[in-house]
Amino acid sequence: MVLNAHSSPAAVRAAARQGLWQGPTAGLANGYVQANLAILPSAIADDFLKFCLANPKPCPLLAFASQPGQTRFDIGGNTLEIRSDAPRYNLFRHGELTETVSDLTAHWRTDMVSFLIGCSFSFEEALQQGGIELRHQTEQKNVPMYNTNLQLTPVGPFQGNMVVSMRPMRAAAAIRAIQICSRFPTVHGAPVHLGDPALIGIRDLQAPDYGDAVSIKPDEIPVFWACGVTPQVAIKNAKPDLAFSHSPGCMLVTDLTNASLAVL
Amino acid sequence: MVLNAHSSPAAVRAAARQGLWQGPTAGLANGYVQANLAILPSAIADDFLKFCLANPKPCPLLAFASQPGQTRFDIGGNTLEIRSDAPRYNLFRHGELTETVSDLTAHWRTDMVSFLIGCSFSFEEALQQGGIELRHQTEQKNVPMYNTNLQLTPVGPFQGNMVVSMRPMRAAAAIRAIQICSRFPTVHGAPVHLGDPALIGIRDLQAPDYGDAVSIKPDEIPVFWACGVTPQVAIKNAKPDLAFSHSPGCMLVTDLTNASLAVL
Repeated sequence: MVLNAHSSPAAVRAAARQGLWQGPTAGLANGYVQANLAILPSAIADDFLKFCLANPKPCPLLAFASQPGQTRFDIGGNTLEIRSDAPRYNLFRHGELTETVSDLTAHWRTDMVSFLIGCSFSFEEALQQGGIELRHQTEQKNVPMYNTNLQLTPVGPFQGNMVVSMRPMRAAAAIRAIQICSRFPTVHGAPVHLGDPALIGIRDLQAPDYGDAVSIKPDEIPVFWACGVTPQVAIKNAKPDLAFSHSPGCMLVTDLTNASLAVL
Repeated sequence: MVLNAHSSPAAVRAAARQGLWQGPTAGLANGYVQANLAILPSAIADDFLKFCLANPKPCPLLAFASQPGQTRFDIGGNTLEIRSDAPRYNLFRHGELTETVSDLTAHWRTDMVSFLIGCSFSFEEALQQGGIELRHQTEQKNVPMYNTNLQLTPVGPFQGNMVVSMRPMRAAAAIRAIQICSRFPTVHGAPVHLGDPALIGIRDLQAPDYGDAVSIKPDEIPVFWACGVTPQVAIKNAKPDLAFSHSPGCMLVTDLTNASLAVL
């Protein structure tokens, strides 16, 4: 199966649905919104909804099921099947990762409620179009991510600290990046911090908690964005009997254009 | 003469015109745009216009004379008299300050071309409304300003390096300040630098080239904006036989609201 930057979102989803593509979606169907998935039992779904609304930078909602059990979503002019259209999924039982599967249908319960959450790929595309180098892409690594001391607003069983991603750049590029990302609040929006990492509880930029370390040049500052790993941490903390997510990097590709997310 | 934050722009101008107010305009007629003035012989006025357009962050044009000798400007629904409506003016001959006067009428030449340039007071009001502390105001000082190694785009006789103003704040406030100021490109717009001052050629933040030093707390970063002193430096470098400006801090108060400058 050959998928690439020019593949349509429908082609990526069809390949995922048929089990022909079970890998990462970075670099596929350029220009289209890829979503994080969080799928939870209805007993705690309203709390999760309010948790996302209370913490919009790490948990920006793109869409959510209007009723438990809903598996089909009309987004961007096409219908997505939430149980099969991402390449890979993680299953959590009582907060622990127990399985990784390419299709959720066999594990589905009619009380599961799906949430689609914005992903940094969208704002990274806007940054690149703005001429800003993304170091982790230059170095062919995953973006470095860190646990912080920035406390989330707790709702019901959902709580924890924010996880951030970091991209180093010169100050002028950081100022431009803030302008660019401010246009995209549904995909994490503007950075939450820049400069001294110790001020948000990060000890060593070269020892990320997730992803890979990247090089930082002497004339650069680290710029930190709220990260979509945050809701996964909150779900682990909540320990629901069952929860699903996409497998990291293996996102649900939608027919929404990244450009359509710009609020101004 | 009692003028204060609630005085109308017309009242401030009338007091200036009559010689009853020859002092600073900071804190007067809150909510209204105050302008830097640059008034030059027509022989070099077109070059100065192009210099401003080539360097819009330090030299953002609010208005300029459509013909040499023009002294009246219809701005914000009222007519300003450029020769008398600012409290004080500086006269430069061959680039040197020779006099400070409260009225330019006796020194006027029919070849003089006037430029009104945006001033930081407008974006500072927006920052304060956004809940961002301005340290120089807290400490009742003038904002600290610095020469930099940021080269301006030269046009004709106008050249030099950018002068910047500095306001210290925490990173989250700096990110918000960038968003707020991006709405106001005609009053210097977004910052041009933040973080390490050495990267733009500033050796010691506690030794500003203009204005006063302010305290910087350990969890703060310096944020640098292009400054309206820049065109004055460029005019000094150009050494015209005659040039006028407002006296620093003694601005031309217009009837334009700061809010009306927001581009979005």
